[in-house]
Amino acid sequence: MNYKMIFSSVGQLLRVEAVLMILPTAVSFYYGENLSYVYGITMALLLITSIIMTLPKISVKRIYAREGFMTVAVSWILMSFFGALPFVISGAIPSIVDAWFETVSGFTTTGSSILTDIEAMPKSLLFWRSFTHWIGGMGVIVFVLAILPQKSTQSMHILRAEVPGPTVGKLVSKTMVTARILYLIYTFLTIVEIILLLICKIPLFDSVTAAFSTAGTGGFAVKNASISAYNNLPAEIVISVFMLLFGINFNLFYLLLIKQVKRVLKSEELWVYLGIVAVSTLVIAADIYPLLGSFGEALRQSGFQVASTITTTGFVTADFNKWPTLSQFILVLLMFVGACAGSTGGGLKIGRIIMLAKAGVRELRRAINPKSVKCIKLEGAVLERETVSNTCVYFMIYMLIVAVSAFLVSFDNMDITSTVTAVVTCINNVGPGLGMVGPVENFSALSDFSKIILSFDMLIGRLEIYPIIILLVPSVWKKSA
Amino acid sequence: MNYKMIFSSVGQLLRVEAVLMILPTAVSFYYGENLSYVYGITMALLLITSIIMTLPKISVKRIYAREGFMTVAVSWILMSFFGALPFVISGAIPSIVDAWFETVSGFTTTGSSILTDIEAMPKSLLFWRSFTHWIGGMGVIVFVLAILPQKSTQSMHILRAEVPGPTVGKLVSKTMVTARILYLIYTFLTIVEIILLLICKIPLFDSVTAAFSTAGTGGFAVKNASISAYNNLPAEIVISVFMLLFGINFNLFYLLLIKQVKRVLKSEELWVYLGIVAVSTLVIAADIYPLLGSFGEALRQSGFQVASTITTTGFVTADFNKWPTLSQFILVLLMFVGACAGSTGGGLKIGRIIMLAKAGVRELRRAINPKSVKCIKLEGAVLERETVSNTCVYFMIYMLIVAVSAFLVSFDNMDITSTVTAVVTCINNVGPGLGMVGPVENFSALSDFSKIILSFDMLIGRLEIYPIIILLVPSVWKKSA
Repeated sequence: MNYKMIFSSVGQLLRVEAVLMILPTAVSFYYGENLSYVYGITMALLLITSIIMTLPKISVKRIYAREGFMTVAVSWILMSFFGALPFVISGAIPSIVDAWFETVSGFTTTGSSILTDIEAMPKSLLFWRSFTHWIGGMGVIVFVLAILPQKSTQSMHILRAEVPGPTVGKLVSKTMVTARILYLIYTFLTIVEIILLLICKIPLFDSVTAAFSTAGTGGFAVKNASISAYNNLPAEIVISVFMLLFGINFNLFYLLLIKQVKRVLKSEELWVYLGIVAVSTLVIAADIYPLLGSFGEALRQSGFQVASTITTTGFVTADFNKWPTLSQFILVLLMFVGACAGSTGGGLKIGRIIMLAKAGVRELRRAINPKSVKCIKLEGAVLERETVSNTCVYFMIYMLIVAVSAFLVSFDNMDITSTVTAVVTCINNVGPGLGMVGPVENFSALSDFSKIILSFDMLIGRLEIYPIIILLVPSVWKKSA
Repeated sequence: MNYKMIFSSVGQLLRVEAVLMILPTAVSFYYGENLSYVYGITMALLLITSIIMTLPKISVKRIYAREGFMTVAVSWILMSFFGALPFVISGAIPSIVDAWFETVSGFTTTGSSILTDIEAMPKSLLFWRSFTHWIGGMGVIVFVLAILPQKSTQSMHILRAEVPGPTVGKLVSKTMVTARILYLIYTFLTIVEIILLLICKIPLFDSVTAAFSTAGTGGFAVKNASISAYNNLPAEIVISVFMLLFGINFNLFYLLLIKQVKRVLKSEELWVYLGIVAVSTLVIAADIYPLLGSFGEALRQSGFQVASTITTTGFVTADFNKWPTLSQFILVLLMFVGACAGSTGGGLKIGRIIMLAKAGVRELRRAINPKSVKCIKLEGAVLERETVSNTCVYFMIYMLIVAVSAFLVSFDNMDITSTVTAVVTCINNVGPGLGMVGPVENFSALSDFSKIILSFDMLIGRLEIYPIIILLVPSVWKKSA
């Protein structure tokens, strides 16, 4: 294990976090909050840690997959730790566990909150909270890669570990250029959403934070009633559309940029994604129609909640705790499905779901006729048996982690639905669950133990299992390994 | 598809079912019930159908895997249909859907019931109900193979499709001899249990039916309060021990018979099975201890329920709906785990769980070090990559069926926990779920649609997915396929 190289990368990243904290500091000045000392202390601590970590001279620059995983895991954990400090130092969230939970929830773009009264928080902290979504959505390390020149072959290991999805392709041959293109598209879409929300007469502060949350598919809102607080249909439509946009593989936006429209329209994952959204919206609308009496209202609530759930954003415009079981169950399934690979969304990812479905069909074919050996294609390309097999194992480990986490959270003795959906919503980076962790509830009532388990579930979900799990394997820590 | 061969095999099987129905007829005579006409009509229908099905002359005797699956699927469906007739004709269960559900639940050794007052049923029908567990436990087709001479190479396809577990080995070279040995061990253990229950002062009728239910790991009881009705600790211990025995791979009993004790003690699956039972019992006992005030009582209830759940029997001595969430969650996990491969129990099977766990660990190793290629061993033998990969796909399809079924059952608008555990308990052939389908409740309140979905889940679980799912693939039905 090349520790010096890991320290150096993490150190660089913490320096970037210190710089990013200038933004909430500016917000606190703007609103005349007396909180600049909070950000000052945090920035100082970040810089000191960063300098210490980058001190050792790096002799061997080569890194392997395991160093990539380790860098990502350590980065996200330290970043969340330092990101939680403003909440603690300001006294806004006195408990360090609560602040850690909230910050991990932010960076992983989960959006589960322990806050009982969001509107009582200082604006600059609310800004920082939503901004963590924006940073975490595309990935902090991708950001570092975009601004700092690195050797391509080495940084690819790190990029692979952070960007979601079963297969990560580089858009262009250089990692740095790829990272820059991704961030340019990301920033552009965010700005367009802010402008559109302003046109819908959402206040500037709310527009910016909502756009951050949408872009990262996070779900933190600045109102206790989430998006329903505005009761603004045009804004809901804008947010729904942008949630769905940020749930699409960013490679497709790049293809649009270079005018390869045909290739975009051929994307299997895109059509499956849109198909699932359309069918789920209609079924839920039909299911909740008797509750609401108006099909228009049913479609409005259903459409928003489906977009919010499949993209794993977690914004809320309706208390789906009161919806019929069928609708609730569809939402839970959508949490697992998640958005497209290479998007900012969480969950298993549509690409994996397609692969699993095809693997299932192939297995059935083989059961009928053992001699039929058909290869599985995705997006027109033949998938290696290895990739398919790995995806099945991935799914299995995923479900195992859900089971073990729910087992541990069940010590809190909430009902089974609340216990399981708390884990499901956290590992899939959605936000709200059902029952006691439902859309109008929050995670404050859980024990510190459960909060720590769930925060690791969020990290496991965001970083796609391996980086975090590998931290638990003692042999990885050996220097010689 | 060799239909003539399938018809002929199914026809033979229905003849055997007609003969087996002599037993409940005898019971009805013994108790002076006026029900012999019920069994008479059913037997007549069985024989007529059997004769018609075996009429066509078989020209080609060769069958392939797909014919094996088809034979098993059609056999179990027809067997359940005819097995349900006594309930309908006698008027004891007027609804054909209810009677079908109850009979499928019997043959698949699930033990979920739609009866609200079991004790009001005629004794001969209660006998038939428990007897279906005994028949279904080891497998009807295995029974046919045991008594009727068949060509070994052909019958192996059928045997494979009916006997649970990822790998079915023949004990001896001839299928018929294997089937006979299995049934001899099965019958012997059943008789020993009956004798022991009689010694515990359980009435003869109750001892016989309880032993049938235990042997098949079914769970139908002849009392409304299940086994807790007897409040008889020695009997509970006998039943617990025998549930665990019937959850062990029968190959191990054969090895004991031929005095290969060392090979039995080396069984990985056996030790994992016993380990899970021990740990679960202790954790649940500690968890429910505060509720009961006595650790002895906690251990008694916990031990019985763990044995009943992991073996997927489903007998009940305590209302675990009132237990803390941790205990309930462990029980739900045990439902999925299930008993050993090659036993009469259901669930995913310990062997598969071990394989999945090892595949997960290997995948983690590979993520750390892509060059490490370690093969997976089970019971000392190297598993082919193919087997491991198939098991992962099996798990994935299994979970998919759970999700789709729960989606369909959620139309009934029970709460999520009841909906999901109804499916989980049925597909794993356990019996009781949680909430509205909990241990002191029953399945009578569900819609006919849900009952049909759940009955197919039972068949899918008992026959391990493929035979039933293949029925839904149109291309299989083609004669030329």
